[in-house]
Amino acid sequence: MGIRTAVAGASGYAGGEVLRILAGHPEIEIGALTAGSNAGTELGAHQPHLRSLAGRVLAETTPETLAGHDVVFLALPHGQSGPLAERLGDDVLVVDCGADFRLADPADWERFYGSPHAGTWPYGLPELPGQREALRGAKRIAVPGCYPTAVTLAMFPALAAGLVEPDVVVVAASGTSGAGRAAKPHLLGSEVMGSVSAYGVGGTHRHTPEMVQNLSAVAGAPVTVSFTPTLAPMSRGILATCTAKARPGLTAGALRAAYEEAYDGEPFAGLLPEGRWPATSMTLGANTALLQVALDEAAGRVVVVAAIDNLTKGTGGGAVQSANLALGLPEGLGLTTIGVSP
Amino acid sequence: MGIRTAVAGASGYAGGEVLRILAGHPEIEIGALTAGSNAGTELGAHQPHLRSLAGRVLAETTPETLAGHDVVFLALPHGQSGPLAERLGDDVLVVDCGADFRLADPADWERFYGSPHAGTWPYGLPELPGQREALRGAKRIAVPGCYPTAVTLAMFPALAAGLVEPDVVVVAASGTSGAGRAAKPHLLGSEVMGSVSAYGVGGTHRHTPEMVQNLSAVAGAPVTVSFTPTLAPMSRGILATCTAKARPGLTAGALRAAYEEAYDGEPFAGLLPEGRWPATSMTLGANTALLQVALDEAAGRVVVVAAIDNLTKGTGGGAVQSANLALGLPEGLGLTTIGVSP
Amino acid sequence: MGIRTAVAGASGYAGGEVLRILAGHPEIEIGALTAGSNAGTELGAHQPHLRSLAGRVLAETTPETLAGHDVVFLALPHGQSGPLAERLGDDVLVVDCGADFRLADPADWERFYGSPHAGTWPYGLPELPGQREALRGAKRIAVPGCYPTAVTLAMFPALAAGLVEPDVVVVAASGTSGAGRAAKPHLLGSEVMGSVSAYGVGGTHRHTPEMVQNLSAVAGAPVTVSFTPTLAPMSRGILATCTAKARPGLTAGALRAAYEEAYDGEPFAGLLPEGRWPATSMTLGANTALLQVALDEAAGRVVVVAAIDNLTKGTGGGAVQSANLALGLPEGLGLTTIGVSP
Amino acid sequence: MGIRTAVAGASGYAGGEVLRILAGHPEIEIGALTAGSNAGTELGAHQPHLRSLAGRVLAETTPETLAGHDVVFLALPHGQSGPLAERLGDDVLVVDCGADFRLADPADWERFYGSPHAGTWPYGLPELPGQREALRGAKRIAVPGCYPTAVTLAMFPALAAGLVEPDVVVVAASGTSGAGRAAKPHLLGSEVMGSVSAYGVGGTHRHTPEMVQNLSAVAGAPVTVSFTPTLAPMSRGILATCTAKARPGLTAGALRAAYEEAYDGEPFAGLLPEGRWPATSMTLGANTALLQVALDEAAGRVVVVAAIDNLTKGTGGGAVQSANLALGLPEGLGLTTIGVSP
Repeated sequence: MGIRTAVAGASGYAGGEVLRILAGHPEIEIGALTAGSNAGTELGAHQPHLRSLAGRVLAETTPETLAGHDVVFLALPHGQSGPLAERLGDDVLVVDCGADFRLADPADWERFYGSPHAGTWPYGLPELPGQREALRGAKRIAVPGCYPTAVTLAMFPALAAGLVEPDVVVVAASGTSGAGRAAKPHLLGSEVMGSVSAYGVGGTHRHTPEMVQNLSAVAGAPVTVSFTPTLAPMSRGILATCTAKARPGLTAGALRAAYEEAYDGEPFAGLLPEGRWPATSMTLGANTALLQVALDEAAGRVVVVAAIDNLTKGTGGGAVQSANLALGLPEGLGLTTIGVSP
Repeated sequence: MGIRTAVAGASGYAGGEVLRILAGHPEIEIGALTAGSNAGTELGAHQPHLRSLAGRVLAETTPETLAGHDVVFLALPHGQSGPLAERLGDDVLVVDCGADFRLADPADWERFYGSPHAGTWPYGLPELPGQREALRGAKRIAVPGCYPTAVTLAMFPALAAGLVEPDVVVVAASGTSGAGRAAKPHLLGSEVMGSVSAYGVGGTHRHTPEMVQNLSAVAGAPVTVSFTPTLAPMSRGILATCTAKARPGLTAGALRAAYEEAYDGEPFAGLLPEGRWPATSMTLGANTALLQVALDEAAGRVVVVAAIDNLTKGTGGGAVQSANLALGLPEGLGLTTIGVSP
Repeated sequence: MGIRTAVAGASGYAGGEVLRILAGHPEIEIGALTAGSNAGTELGAHQPHLRSLAGRVLAETTPETLAGHDVVFLALPHGQSGPLAERLGDDVLVVDCGADFRLADPADWERFYGSPHAGTWPYGLPELPGQREALRGAKRIAVPGCYPTAVTLAMFPALAAGLVEPDVVVVAASGTSGAGRAAKPHLLGSEVMGSVSAYGVGGTHRHTPEMVQNLSAVAGAPVTVSFTPTLAPMSRGILATCTAKARPGLTAGALRAAYEEAYDGEPFAGLLPEGRWPATSMTLGANTALLQVALDEAAGRVVVVAAIDNLTKGTGGGAVQSANLALGLPEGLGLTTIGVSP
Repeated sequence: MGIRTAVAGASGYAGGEVLRILAGHPEIEIGALTAGSNAGTELGAHQPHLRSLAGRVLAETTPETLAGHDVVFLALPHGQSGPLAERLGDDVLVVDCGADFRLADPADWERFYGSPHAGTWPYGLPELPGQREALRGAKRIAVPGCYPTAVTLAMFPALAAGLVEPDVVVVAASGTSGAGRAAKPHLLGSEVMGSVSAYGVGGTHRHTPEMVQNLSAVAGAPVTVSFTPTLAPMSRGILATCTAKARPGLTAGALRAAYEEAYDGEPFAGLLPEGRWPATSMTLGANTALLQVALDEAAGRVVVVAAIDNLTKGTGGGAVQSANLALGLPEGLGLTTIGVSP
């Protein structure tokens, strides 16, 4: 008998990705699948790519339907995980793919999300210093946002080692699945194909305070982040280009060494060989974060580029990686470093 | 110790897909990786998505580098497998992803490929009646072409059951990876994005005689195939729309029943539930062929639509499925029915 | 002073394309722009590419707002043009981009559209034999559907000349803009990118009876059409592959000659040189229909491939071409044969 | 009789775009079309979208074939325009779409292009202060690079007004046509579709010194530019995100006012209304540069986003705009602000 697992929000993109990974996970037994307005329909009507689960009928997302499982993954609109999680048992591992439990500062939460702060759970990014240990045996996990995953992994080694000034500029391109399955006109294929566009410019994107929180903690001092997200004509993938002023005397060798050290032994994140630059296609469907660094001496800046699959390492894969740690399983169980390409 | 396996043509798209699947196959141990002009370079320079194999150096494709393996996958330009295979031992399982050993009629081969005919090997499409048995214990396998895989699976049940006239019209859309990694101007991203184009019209595509051969064998009589391939702006996937005149008296129910019977128990191919139509995204990275059928009473025709991933079920996945049978392993080992979507 | 022109449905894709063309038309003066639920907003909120009109505020679509113009283009959901047109003056040129006045047979209309039949107007396809004359001086024009434009232009020469049997198979790929701007989940970028899918299979697509009507009229006898539309990952473009059985004795030369004759002198439609096959990118933003023909002797079939921009020749450009004729202007005024590529 | 015009490099993407625009230019008569290895073939074999010119045969690019024209557009690989231009008459307007005459500093040229410096010609960006006047009556024009067009237009108003520190960070996404028609594996559709990738990171891209030169001139002091180009899955378009530290006391209102003033009366560049952000699709085929600005108070930075069509405003349209000025024609002749969308 496997570890009995429920997924709330199974008809959405995040829930679908959690299920895609769980379906190949050797220790997991998939239990209740729930949804909001799609309750009562077959999973296959929404996730036809999940062939082995396509005939499952979605239950309504309630504490009752989610009861009786060892693990519950929540893939819900922000603000919904908080109230629901309160009614799930303390002995159940609850993994929230939403934003509700990521931010430590209630003021940040309220300013960016406009509702009462639910609290803070252990943050599901095992590559951060000390974080792997914090996740072992945890009963609650806040899965990082997709952009913060890419940006935090890109910049923490340089900030932790004091190689750059605490003033980070990030421009990131994301595939459209990051916006979820909401049928909004600007997300129509006709609008997004053949076009790159900017949105959430000027520090207004909700993932900004999460990046600031992560990077400030690592730097041991306040870090500012100028974050500009852009929408690219692809379904999946984030390419984050991150720069900060190099501290005087930094050499390209020292920069590279800091990243090699920070990612030494990490199974899912690290530098590409010199001369190769990340492309999101390298990570499609894989739980990897692939980085490259450069020191631009003329501009006096460090540039770090990170590629992830926003749904895998940025959501469902990251969630399973942290859940594995919490459950005492091998961290990489059910996960792959092999992407689907071309 | 796993089954020692070599892949010739490892830097191309077909070879990369074989490796993507073998990398997750529990019984396979990956041995020599070889290439033509890319010999001497790292696999990661060509296949950066194959993280766990990225540091492997490609050897030259020769009988010597391929010797000493239990299985050899050949993913070479057509015409190259024939001479090479002659020099591989009879006790080695040789799986040819190329066209060299697919056609039974030397005249067909010579007309479409313009070189001497190499011969005919057991055809790697286990879903064809009797073919699964023919593959068990085989030492040589000819992997079907990508278009013939989709079209044969789409039409054989109707032809075998005599439900349609032996005069098939096929229009298929393929992703660009079907053309391989050759750097030709018309395959540049700038040319293919935002555009669907026709090519190989009027029966001139090399996969036409393979479809005719398969469908005629099943129908027990000559079948004509009017085949028009089109190039679609996506990397992977084939959607084949196949039609033939319905025999008098055919009902929608009888049509559906014939397909359900033909695919009863098949792990990797079959009908979608009524009302759902195939999309190639449902099959991305999966070894599935997803079908749907309709009877157009006004036009008097049966329409069958099939979706596959041209690189997975259409090449590398199909190759591994047949190799599993030849090796006496469970047919689905290392393969999945779960696609990567959205 | 130009010809005063109103556009109803200006915030949709068809209305936007009509405006894109009218904005460069030397004889047209753009008057009222109207919308349904978008009334009261700026055009630029919906059509930011129409820079010179972006500040215009959309009025509500009513007979009153549309009054006082010489020409009114209707780009409305089907069923809405009929009642509205009744209240526009007989001296006004009304060009309906919708389906309301295309079908001659009320039974066809009711079966495919489910509402009372509005009537039949002169059909805006000047390339059809005799149709150019029918459009000169007309006060009402029914713009053809996008698929019927491509398919009719592809097949009428062969049917008119009796070169093929009256039994046509069509498989067409369309860009997503053909479905309009309705925010439906299956049209989201995340769903359509990287995927080709079938829909409306088995003769159920609403454009089927329009094709049958056109081709039967030209053939002088009932023609059946098996029509399968597919959705391709691009915003614009239709590639229609059309085949029919060749009549005995047909030669490739005679086939080609029939098309050259049918399109002799046509400004916007015709054959590509031998050896070149249509791609939708050749027609992007242009009012052209580009064709190529082949005779497949093995299969005994004629294959005709046609490429158009579904929004230009298939909607807005075709509408302006016919309106030019109706207004006594040069047929090509404001239109181009030059596409935007790559 | 029109102004007799030749285009060298007519089979490439830049040459094709120049021709696309010239084909609709009312004062231009298109003369010789020349090419390198494609000489002797029909233009339509390479540019099938240019229907009215498709039958033209390409001559070889030599001083002789280009002689006898009033205007010559050069769309050649860098390094080829210099020697050729020397042999074209001083009375001929020569417009170089290549890089040869853009950089003032021979050392910059040699470092980034590795060949002898050809010289410096009037820079074809009329929106720069004083530049429109410099172009009137000119006989030689250096068309700006595509990235420098977007970045210079994005940042010059803020730098000229002293609103930001002279330390600019740029991350730009480009469509693949920016790399030209060279058939390189990494530009294949299979590689670029579904993927965003970084390249030329760390100040190594050849357009970097051109940006530094432009922005330093406007700022009246050395400006550093950290430039990271990325490749996006689309054929056309550049979206450049540019940021710099805001000078103390800068307000959002003052920022906006500076841009409104800088672009007051400009026909082809300027701010979008507040609340709307640029998308490259808004500019497809149009000669427009569309901007938006934000002041991120938390990060203390100004963010400017610019969208252009790299082939139109970024190459062929910009070239014609400057040529119009040089020829004493209305600046916008043959150009449009209306994009092709969706």
